[in-house]
Amino acid sequence: MSHWRRRRGAPVLDFAAANGLIDRRALLGSGMTIAGGLAAAASVTGAAAEPLADAPWSIAVGDVMPAVQTPSAFEKDVTRALSNPNGEFRTSHARTPHHRLGGTITPNGLHFSINHGGVPNIDPAGHKLVIHGMVRRPLEFTLESLSRYPLVTRTAFVECAGNSAPMFAQEPLQTTVQMLHGLVSNAEWTGVPLSTLLDEAGIDPTAKWLVAEGADAQFLDRSVPVKKAYDDALIAIYQNGEHLMPGNGYPMRLLLPGYQGNMNVKYLRRIIVIDQPAYSYFETKNYSQILPGGKTWRYHFLMEVKSFISQPSYGSSLKQPGLYAISGLAYSGTGRIVKVMVSADGGKSWGEAALQGPIHEKAFTRFVMPWRWDGQPAILQSRAYDDGGNVQPLRAEFVAMRGEATRPVTTPLTFPNQHYNSITSWAVDSTGAIKHVYA
Amino acid sequence: MSHWRRRRGAPVLDFAAANGLIDRRALLGSGMTIAGGLAAAASVTGAAAEPLADAPWSIAVGDVMPAVQTPSAFEKDVTRALSNPNGEFRTSHARTPHHRLGGTITPNGLHFSINHGGVPNIDPAGHKLVIHGMVRRPLEFTLESLSRYPLVTRTAFVECAGNSAPMFAQEPLQTTVQMLHGLVSNAEWTGVPLSTLLDEAGIDPTAKWLVAEGADAQFLDRSVPVKKAYDDALIAIYQNGEHLMPGNGYPMRLLLPGYQGNMNVKYLRRIIVIDQPAYSYFETKNYSQILPGGKTWRYHFLMEVKSFISQPSYGSSLKQPGLYAISGLAYSGTGRIVKVMVSADGGKSWGEAALQGPIHEKAFTRFVMPWRWDGQPAILQSRAYDDGGNVQPLRAEFVAMRGEATRPVTTPLTFPNQHYNSITSWAVDSTGAIKHVYA
Repeated sequence: MSHWRRRRGAPVLDFAAANGLIDRRALLGSGMTIAGGLAAAASVTGAAAEPLADAPWSIAVGDVMPAVQTPSAFEKDVTRALSNPNGEFRTSHARTPHHRLGGTITPNGLHFSINHGGVPNIDPAGHKLVIHGMVRRPLEFTLESLSRYPLVTRTAFVECAGNSAPMFAQEPLQTTVQMLHGLVSNAEWTGVPLSTLLDEAGIDPTAKWLVAEGADAQFLDRSVPVKKAYDDALIAIYQNGEHLMPGNGYPMRLLLPGYQGNMNVKYLRRIIVIDQPAYSYFETKNYSQILPGGKTWRYHFLMEVKSFISQPSYGSSLKQPGLYAISGLAYSGTGRIVKVMVSADGGKSWGEAALQGPIHEKAFTRFVMPWRWDGQPAILQSRAYDDGGNVQPLRAEFVAMRGEATRPVTTPLTFPNQHYNSITSWAVDSTGAIKHVYA
Repeated sequence: MSHWRRRRGAPVLDFAAANGLIDRRALLGSGMTIAGGLAAAASVTGAAAEPLADAPWSIAVGDVMPAVQTPSAFEKDVTRALSNPNGEFRTSHARTPHHRLGGTITPNGLHFSINHGGVPNIDPAGHKLVIHGMVRRPLEFTLESLSRYPLVTRTAFVECAGNSAPMFAQEPLQTTVQMLHGLVSNAEWTGVPLSTLLDEAGIDPTAKWLVAEGADAQFLDRSVPVKKAYDDALIAIYQNGEHLMPGNGYPMRLLLPGYQGNMNVKYLRRIIVIDQPAYSYFETKNYSQILPGGKTWRYHFLMEVKSFISQPSYGSSLKQPGLYAISGLAYSGTGRIVKVMVSADGGKSWGEAALQGPIHEKAFTRFVMPWRWDGQPAILQSRAYDDGGNVQPLRAEFVAMRGEATRPVTTPLTFPNQHYNSITSWAVDSTGAIKHVYA
């Protein structure tokens, strides 16, 4: 039937690497025939438009539209994973379900959050931000006055330094990408450049540090180099278009794109301009990374180049051999992602994934790699490259430099160390089951 | 005190146009001193860190973190405006509160929605999309099978052709930007290129149209040129990272970037490939724009270049003379926004606004213009330009071409006509009050 033809060129399904990885140019052509096994239901047998069966929701009036809409009831298990659901007197973590999400934006309801004394219920009419210390003119701001400034909008990931900490375990934990890597999220943030406010205050040229302090019950405080404040720091007041979520710093937070999450101080109430760091709890006790020799890295702020495959991943399985899309997230605190390589044979061969543009600096980049699974065992990995020339380290390289946990780790809720940015490996066996492995 | 100095060059506050519009390069310098009148509270008197008063939320443990977070209770009036809150047997509209939002992304809870028979509560396990008609091989898809394709992510606005319809009124309605322009929103959409699925089905080269049909109680159907399907159409399954909102087409919708909202068929259950349009209700009775001479435009799909100022706008007021930021949204169904001009004197003089990048094609672009209000009357306007050489028409030009309502319009809930894309004017009087005017 030559009358029926494809509209564009013949399929291009060159392989990009071993074990079924398909050249990403296939995405631009007409070669994807994933639906092969899914096609041609009995009710649809030809060119004529036969009646379709009508579902119950098609023959009754639907629900009333709410003033604020929420996800479908059929999505009720797409939630953050809570480490402290009853609010006991300890830190609470809420992890983003990356294995259930697509694209790059983390919807506000599912943005990760960590709080050490619960989520403060702040009335913005009673909240002030003060800038003082080594300044010519101390200043005070409210949500309303910040809103009068020309605001800047940018997309940025925020990642807890302890994200992926379970990967320091000596044996791979069998758990989801949410539990392994759910302490990173990505949003469009809008706020006032901190440089604008510091210029208005007139800071002493000998000042080298800022101490940012939150209004939560812990008065969480962190030291930030003045240089970073003048680079790309914002006082953020909007998150994906609306005012910040309560767990993400409402009504205002510090945003330090690419720096560890804890420094992006939430509920920001004070910035002290000073000539030395504060040596606060979270920069001395926590977040000083312990190295194998017993030394520690102090003030290691940057969240380095990283990626992980979110689909397929632990918790799902492949139903039958055929075409799949391997998809995941890549990001770097240094700048832009320029390349993500994917392997289906545990790192023996690599093919370049397609990146979804536009690619924002210090923000999630979604990569996609078409893959034909032949029903044989495979080990899926991704490896990201950024525009600063940084490459996500292989696990052997990373462990040599940073070490592993010194005692067995049995739950993803422990934090043996921080700043894990090496590779995650998903092993697919011949039944389609997926395990977390080190490879 | 020469020791205390600004870190960068002297203020640059050149005026860009009359009535206080400031050159946008001021945003890059250190010249913004908006907080002038806001600064130096009594409690903050010098370089030493005096104790700050502690708010109640700082001295008590906060709330328990929820599995899905929602906005602060202090944001409870930031909602969509409902035209049919009790779900009477007629069309329901939910309008986005642009005057309360920042940045460019519309958060999912506040994305606009229109439904003619309520919101169907669709179980994705029982929902199928069928492609049939003039194809070699009819195909059937589920949410699960679509999820196996390499997905594409892009940002796009969706706008009802009837958005801004109150602007056809002969007298300017005194109402908010939400009521005037709330039937447009902007999201990151992720889905399968429709071209991939059509190629898989193998469409007849003589086919010229698709008829897309929804599974809502109305089986809403619209005709779409095959050319558009091959240009940039998606079957979208994610909206800002999570599966679609129930009111925005869960579990799958057609996305036709830049085309009128109604064509982006929600709850998509069928695409019929055909050689002529369907002449369906919404493309004949509705959305055939009536011209002043009594003729109509048929199949006028494109949502043309447009902008409006969201802050300041009707419903707010200026408390005192001083520096403000004029901010708003610009977009074009043709492509990218390249320039937005702002006037503070009702169009006599114009200055170029700063655009927040990166600027996506067929998506919201946020513009910002610093403005020094001197306490005298002003009329604020914005005018957008796209990369196709299109310019947002002045109101006189628009009315000459498209006409006004032929009878008085007293409520923003009426739709005298469609595809309004001319200018919105906010008049500020000497008390700081803001009115909607035609200028």
